[in-house]
Amino acid sequence: MNISKLISEIKRKQSFLCIGLDSDINKIPEFLKQKEDPVFEFNKAIVDATAEYTVAYKPNIAFYECYGAKGWLTLEKTVNYIKEKFPEIFLIADAKRGDIGNTSKMYADAFFGRMPFDAITVAPYMGEDSVSPFLSYKEKHVILLALTSNQGAFDFQLFENSEGELLFEKVLRKSQEWPDNDRLMYVVGATKAEMLSDIRKILPNQFLLVPGVGAQGGSLEEVAKYGMINDCGLLVNSSRGIIFAGKDHDFAEQAAIKAKELQQQMSTYL
Amino acid sequence: MNISKLISEIKRKQSFLCIGLDSDINKIPEFLKQKEDPVFEFNKAIVDATAEYTVAYKPNIAFYECYGAKGWLTLEKTVNYIKEKFPEIFLIADAKRGDIGNTSKMYADAFFGRMPFDAITVAPYMGEDSVSPFLSYKEKHVILLALTSNQGAFDFQLFENSEGELLFEKVLRKSQEWPDNDRLMYVVGATKAEMLSDIRKILPNQFLLVPGVGAQGGSLEEVAKYGMINDCGLLVNSSRGIIFAGKDHDFAEQAAIKAKELQQQMSTYL
Repeated sequence: MNISKLISEIKRKQSFLCIGLDSDINKIPEFLKQKEDPVFEFNKAIVDATAEYTVAYKPNIAFYECYGAKGWLTLEKTVNYIKEKFPEIFLIADAKRGDIGNTSKMYADAFFGRMPFDAITVAPYMGEDSVSPFLSYKEKHVILLALTSNQGAFDFQLFENSEGELLFEKVLRKSQEWPDNDRLMYVVGATKAEMLSDIRKILPNQFLLVPGVGAQGGSLEEVAKYGMINDCGLLVNSSRGIIFAGKDHDFAEQAAIKAKELQQQMSTYL
Repeated sequence: MNISKLISEIKRKQSFLCIGLDSDINKIPEFLKQKEDPVFEFNKAIVDATAEYTVAYKPNIAFYECYGAKGWLTLEKTVNYIKEKFPEIFLIADAKRGDIGNTSKMYADAFFGRMPFDAITVAPYMGEDSVSPFLSYKEKHVILLALTSNQGAFDFQLFENSEGELLFEKVLRKSQEWPDNDRLMYVVGATKAEMLSDIRKILPNQFLLVPGVGAQGGSLEEVAKYGMINDCGLLVNSSRGIIFAGKDHDFAEQAAIKAKELQQQMSTYL
């Protein structure tokens, strides 16, 4: 999917919501656990109930990989279901991969060749040749980790050179020199929303994926205030706050209520 | 497996070889492709032929993940086979994972809970809480990316602060302040072997996993010269140079010849 399609969906749905499908089997409703593939049934119901309020879904791969081959089947079924029923939705693999060139190529084949993801999160530590194989897939996007929402972000991402440039700023600037940089997006945690205006000086036009609203404490209002551009340029992720809003037979309805609340708040910023 | 067991195996086998099971299905012998699980048959034969010369195997997860659920089954079969038949061998998941705490926990469950890996490679960009869930598994190890063997290593890993400290040095120093740092090892590419003596000033005792000997051009002699300590402290990886040494029915014998050559060279340095 290209960026202009994503932007037009944001305008049509009046939403820049991304729903994280971090579908921990230990947190889904009990009654689903009798089903053959409980996590798939959970995802399907969540997606059906929330698709009108969101422009993106983002399964975090760890929550599937921890069940081995079975988990990968659940993941494949989930993304195929979404892409078939809601082809206009932007599908992000939250995988945080990255390896030397010939190996990143294999990861790209996994997520873009075999599965219909539109984008993948990638860790920047290994540099350009760990990222470029993903971008060699046309109409696909890399979402590079820049400033993450966790405590450990302070360990290395704020490492500062003699000119006062921080590592995450170096990642933003350097990666913008790479080919196909128009298909690069960046992860910037909502817990550091006040830093978004400085980031916008470096990246006036790029899309930012913003996790950490809700469970991790970030504020949607601040994210919109400091990070929004003319074409929106934001995907704000919420995972647990939406998908685990309800614990019983009404879990999908409860998720829809939470998603709609966020969508309505977002529409006031657009 | 604890470190002292690994060290005693290095001494017993007179080898600090790690064999990378980057078993690309497009590069394995044609006749194997008739089998139900060609990559597993390939791995099994390679392992049986080379186990006496190596102390570690390191499947790169990308080469399995690119076949989805089927690839994960092959991976699980491979590592279960190795751990059952050769329990003294150190099993490394070359996965380069790393995420916020609750998510890294899921990856740790995948590789240490579900599968019998002894160690996993982790990207340091997200800091301490992305690493610690792996170390909460006792007798398991994290191999943190420090200075990798690819061209892109120069993009960010040599980013320098005002005191002349490079990012990868900061990763070495900072991570040594974390709990359970005795179970931290580091990836240092053989293509930068001359930097190993500086790294040994920071890490006099830690194990280093050194990729890039052979296909990527690094020299074993230089790695041993600059990186070896009393307890060896090195695992030198070779992948393509061993596992794809032969292309026909004698592929496992050819791999054994290459592995033995490296082991014999290593024994002269020990």
